[in-house]
Amino acid sequence: MVTLLVNTLESPWARLKPIPIENVKIMDQFWAPRLKTLREETLPSQYNLMEETGRIDNFRRAAGKIKGPFRGAYYNDSDVYKWVEAACLTLAYERDQKIATLLTNVIDEIVAAQDEDGYLNTYFTYEKKRLRWTNLRDMHELYCAGHLFQAAIAYHRSTGEKELLTTAVRFADHIASVFGPGKRRGTPGHPEIEMALVELYRETRKEEYLELAQFFLDQRGYGLIGGSIVLIDHKPFRQLDEIVGHAVRAIYLCCGATDIFMETGERELYETLEKLWKNMVYKRMYVTGGVGSRHAGEAFGDDYELPNRRAYSETCASVANVMWNWRMLLATGESRFTDIMELALYNAALAGISLNGREYFYVNPLADRGRHRRQRWFGCACCPPNIARLLASVPGMIYSTSDNAIWVHLYVASVARIELKGNEVRITQETEYPWDGRIDVTVEPSKDDEFSLYLRIPGWCRAATVNVNGRKVRKSVKPSNYLEISRVWGTGDRVEIELDMPVTLLKSHPYVLNNNYRVAIKRGPVVYCLEQADNPEYDVWNIAIVPETKFTATYEPELLGGVVVIEGNGIGLDISAWNNKLYAEMDEVQVKAIPVKFKAVPYYAWANRSPGPMIVWIQALGFNTLQGGKKLYKA
Amino acid sequence: MVTLLVNTLESPWARLKPIPIENVKIMDQFWAPRLKTLREETLPSQYNLMEETGRIDNFRRAAGKIKGPFRGAYYNDSDVYKWVEAACLTLAYERDQKIATLLTNVIDEIVAAQDEDGYLNTYFTYEKKRLRWTNLRDMHELYCAGHLFQAAIAYHRSTGEKELLTTAVRFADHIASVFGPGKRRGTPGHPEIEMALVELYRETRKEEYLELAQFFLDQRGYGLIGGSIVLIDHKPFRQLDEIVGHAVRAIYLCCGATDIFMETGERELYETLEKLWKNMVYKRMYVTGGVGSRHAGEAFGDDYELPNRRAYSETCASVANVMWNWRMLLATGESRFTDIMELALYNAALAGISLNGREYFYVNPLADRGRHRRQRWFGCACCPPNIARLLASVPGMIYSTSDNAIWVHLYVASVARIELKGNEVRITQETEYPWDGRIDVTVEPSKDDEFSLYLRIPGWCRAATVNVNGRKVRKSVKPSNYLEISRVWGTGDRVEIELDMPVTLLKSHPYVLNNNYRVAIKRGPVVYCLEQADNPEYDVWNIAIVPETKFTATYEPELLGGVVVIEGNGIGLDISAWNNKLYAEMDEVQVKAIPVKFKAVPYYAWANRSPGPMIVWIQALGFNTLQGGKKLYKA
Repeated sequence: MVTLLVNTLESPWARLKPIPIENVKIMDQFWAPRLKTLREETLPSQYNLMEETGRIDNFRRAAGKIKGPFRGAYYNDSDVYKWVEAACLTLAYERDQKIATLLTNVIDEIVAAQDEDGYLNTYFTYEKKRLRWTNLRDMHELYCAGHLFQAAIAYHRSTGEKELLTTAVRFADHIASVFGPGKRRGTPGHPEIEMALVELYRETRKEEYLELAQFFLDQRGYGLIGGSIVLIDHKPFRQLDEIVGHAVRAIYLCCGATDIFMETGERELYETLEKLWKNMVYKRMYVTGGVGSRHAGEAFGDDYELPNRRAYSETCASVANVMWNWRMLLATGESRFTDIMELALYNAALAGISLNGREYFYVNPLADRGRHRRQRWFGCACCPPNIARLLASVPGMIYSTSDNAIWVHLYVASVARIELKGNEVRITQETEYPWDGRIDVTVEPSKDDEFSLYLRIPGWCRAATVNVNGRKVRKSVKPSNYLEISRVWGTGDRVEIELDMPVTLLKSHPYVLNNNYRVAIKRGPVVYCLEQADNPEYDVWNIAIVPETKFTATYEPELLGGVVVIEGNGIGLDISAWNNKLYAEMDEVQVKAIPVKFKAVPYYAWANRSPGPMIVWIQALGFNTLQGGKKLYKA
Repeated sequence: MVTLLVNTLESPWARLKPIPIENVKIMDQFWAPRLKTLREETLPSQYNLMEETGRIDNFRRAAGKIKGPFRGAYYNDSDVYKWVEAACLTLAYERDQKIATLLTNVIDEIVAAQDEDGYLNTYFTYEKKRLRWTNLRDMHELYCAGHLFQAAIAYHRSTGEKELLTTAVRFADHIASVFGPGKRRGTPGHPEIEMALVELYRETRKEEYLELAQFFLDQRGYGLIGGSIVLIDHKPFRQLDEIVGHAVRAIYLCCGATDIFMETGERELYETLEKLWKNMVYKRMYVTGGVGSRHAGEAFGDDYELPNRRAYSETCASVANVMWNWRMLLATGESRFTDIMELALYNAALAGISLNGREYFYVNPLADRGRHRRQRWFGCACCPPNIARLLASVPGMIYSTSDNAIWVHLYVASVARIELKGNEVRITQETEYPWDGRIDVTVEPSKDDEFSLYLRIPGWCRAATVNVNGRKVRKSVKPSNYLEISRVWGTGDRVEIELDMPVTLLKSHPYVLNNNYRVAIKRGPVVYCLEQADNPEYDVWNIAIVPETKFTATYEPELLGGVVVIEGNGIGLDISAWNNKLYAEMDEVQVKAIPVKFKAVPYYAWANRSPGPMIVWIQALGFNTLQGGKKLYKA
């Protein structure tokens, strides 16, 4: 049984429990082809690249099977572990012989590389052995260990094989023999091991691992790793009041803290998590769900510091954002977390991988002049296997359960078998989501029983209707909410959900200075952009939307793997009078306006065609969202 | 005779020649108090900090006078040299016994630290000696050497003493014995030595130095120092077509190339300089004259990438911008260079130092929430002595001469003695510039003679009138131009210049996305900002200018050392409806507008009072600078 990412089945403070990934079969036009590409293109090509770049050889070298120097960066083991995790999740979902063979091979190499004392890191071998645990700040030993644990758990859940889990447990025991109360102090420069240790505790029920996770969290903020803000070591975790530092580190740390909360129920920890989440979502997150706006330090910026062209918005940070919100959702059952999870998944994270499944963005700008293109690999290749394991986990994030309820988080055409109090409930979703807001849900329990169905009404949806067996649900249907339908369910019960999904224009808080007088197009969970390939006539940076713009939304099955495009009439700005001027007096330069048609495509699909300008925040002219303003200054 | 920065007296391709700094006496309310503060506060306090931080002890240690480890960063010698240069220029202008004593002391320490073979760098001594010249990319040996040469030249010109110049020449000869055609290849990671070597050539007439400068320039771009863009080593200099990389490095390199051009007249070199200058000024420069918009790599951004809040705009880069434009002006006599020189001087560079002369900005944002404050020193303390040497050189940048002409570049109340063909011409400027556009110039040649007076009509000035002895000059007076007045000049001749100096609003090229619908206030050469201290009622980020805003300009002698403030009526935006929302649909959030008075102060003077928000690019509401736009989309 491959419960995904977080197995809270026995976590006392977790409101929701995940369901096994293998019990969900996706049959849609959106995710199903992506999971196929993941199996057939992404995972095999990443495996080859890991071989090419010496990442797997490093394990062979550590095991004494081959000679030669360590290759690449000291944190490269983690890429292999993330690939293993992605492959395991994929196999749980659908058996693929090629992937299974690659997986067996690489796991043999990993297991063989472990030291007698349980230590496992291919960089710290031979002449580097004496440097083990001497630089927790920079050298990512605990980070790599965490990814090993997650990979081992995924392998165990996916295959039932104990081999890699034994390796992980031996390493965890070794770490626990070195670090902990009364032993050595320390905390990792890059969080990751915290959530991995909690999951290892869930898998093995060895409380020592939970305690060690808490120990690493509690050691943070006392300068043991230098005290920097980038490493979130400037303050103890429970004293943090804004989300700062390296974005991936910050969110992985929050993931670990959320996992710890689900086991301990520590209120103070949850209050800190709430504070950080609100700071992130209210002030430091892109409209795509991307986070970490600064190139310098790959870090969160200040409040409202969200540049578009120089956005960092690392793919790994978007993956982390999904992971954290999934945990917060499990902890609370609150739909605001599902909203952000869905947002980051469909937009910022998904943009990280090309449609062909073989190229990746590390950095995800929201405006570009055509230079930024996906790469097949990176020296620091954290993002490719991270997006792979995220995609592989999508089937596991659609549902979860609580005591007497089934929760529907994501709308995806699929069939699922869900165990609830000994009853096996078959749930079928028929929908064109995310392109259409109509979802038909069929509920088929193995025997009639009373339980609740919690249906997510997304935050983006202002009007929704829900019918059960043709009769409208009387409860008020509010956005960003779970609608509880409690009844005796029997075979053939049918729920019809109609989520109003118009084209909407979003504006930004005025302090996001670069978005003033600009709007983003969004429809349902999908954020759009203008890309040059669809708009040959005008540089898309010069297209403006006006209040009279009418939008149409059309599904184009042949475009970009099948997308709804949004078209409208706006104006094209002829800015040629600005030629060679950077600054001008108000009356010195006039921009000419010409009627123009534009076509927007989903942001996640950009840069899959010929290079050219792209923009998410489109100029908006003539809108007045000011109360009293015109009266005040009109002559 | 202390000719400043660049002594082009015998440079064959330089159109203009500088005049000695000691021949200009500034008597205004703007620069004279700053030069006094420089002598009395800045230079003594910097000297103390150099002692405190071990920078001077490093020389004593190298000379064997004291024991102990090298202190600070490997490039710290350069700070001492820049301080020496600033002190020499200051002494040329006005004898100050305290400065003179400090100068003599530190020069003794420098001279004593030189090795027998001429080498001089206090980091590469004792156990580090064997590492000399092994890492030109990172270790700043040639950079420090360049600053030593400039300091030595300034000392020689200022005092006539040869001691430090001899040290410089010995070191230069040592460098020439190591590097050059047929010897070792190499180029510095941080340019600086190029312009220093050309100046040393001008001072000594040893052609070897000019050749070596050219050698270092020509070696660049072949990967000798790694081939990175940040170090401008990705292409040979003459193949560059955009200004990229670390901003200070890039502009120092251009300074050196301009100096080389003035000696060799190499057309290709000048064409590259033109291309880079245009790219910088038309696409990559802040409205303040600041450059280098990226924190990452302290580097130039892409075209139009000019964030305000995350501006880098290093103080040293603004100093460099003044230096380069001064050189381009000398090379060509074209006023567009003087315009940028003046802009960077009065705004981006001047903001680098506090009004009390003892605190500095390294980074100069154009919008802030109140956290960014000047510091008394930095671990990397390049900026403080750089701004000191720039301020000390202002008297030398007001005038220059050509064959039969005197050029007036800057308007500053002052008296100058200028040698022209054996005639000593006394020029007196009476003016309140930069606060007022009226300048009365009195010309008093020792004997009547025919020559030209070139008066700069600044680029910011749209309307100017010039009278000679009460009679209007007939020539058309164009902005960004030198107006030539050719006549027989005799004692008592008086030129009255009236530069129209209204309050102007500037807008930015539409691709500077963060400045859309925002304006900057400028008056004459001075860029303004809104600072919270003057506008207690509304967060200055929420103040907007409207088309009906009327501006007044008032001189306030007690404020910020005496400034013209700009006041007006605008609107204050109540954005409280945005509370805890980052994105909203168009009709979801309304901002309320309330009439408000605002007061703007010069940008250079910001952050000298209580901390609070500041903004240069102010919201502008209701302006229509679109031709045809309204018609197109109005119902």
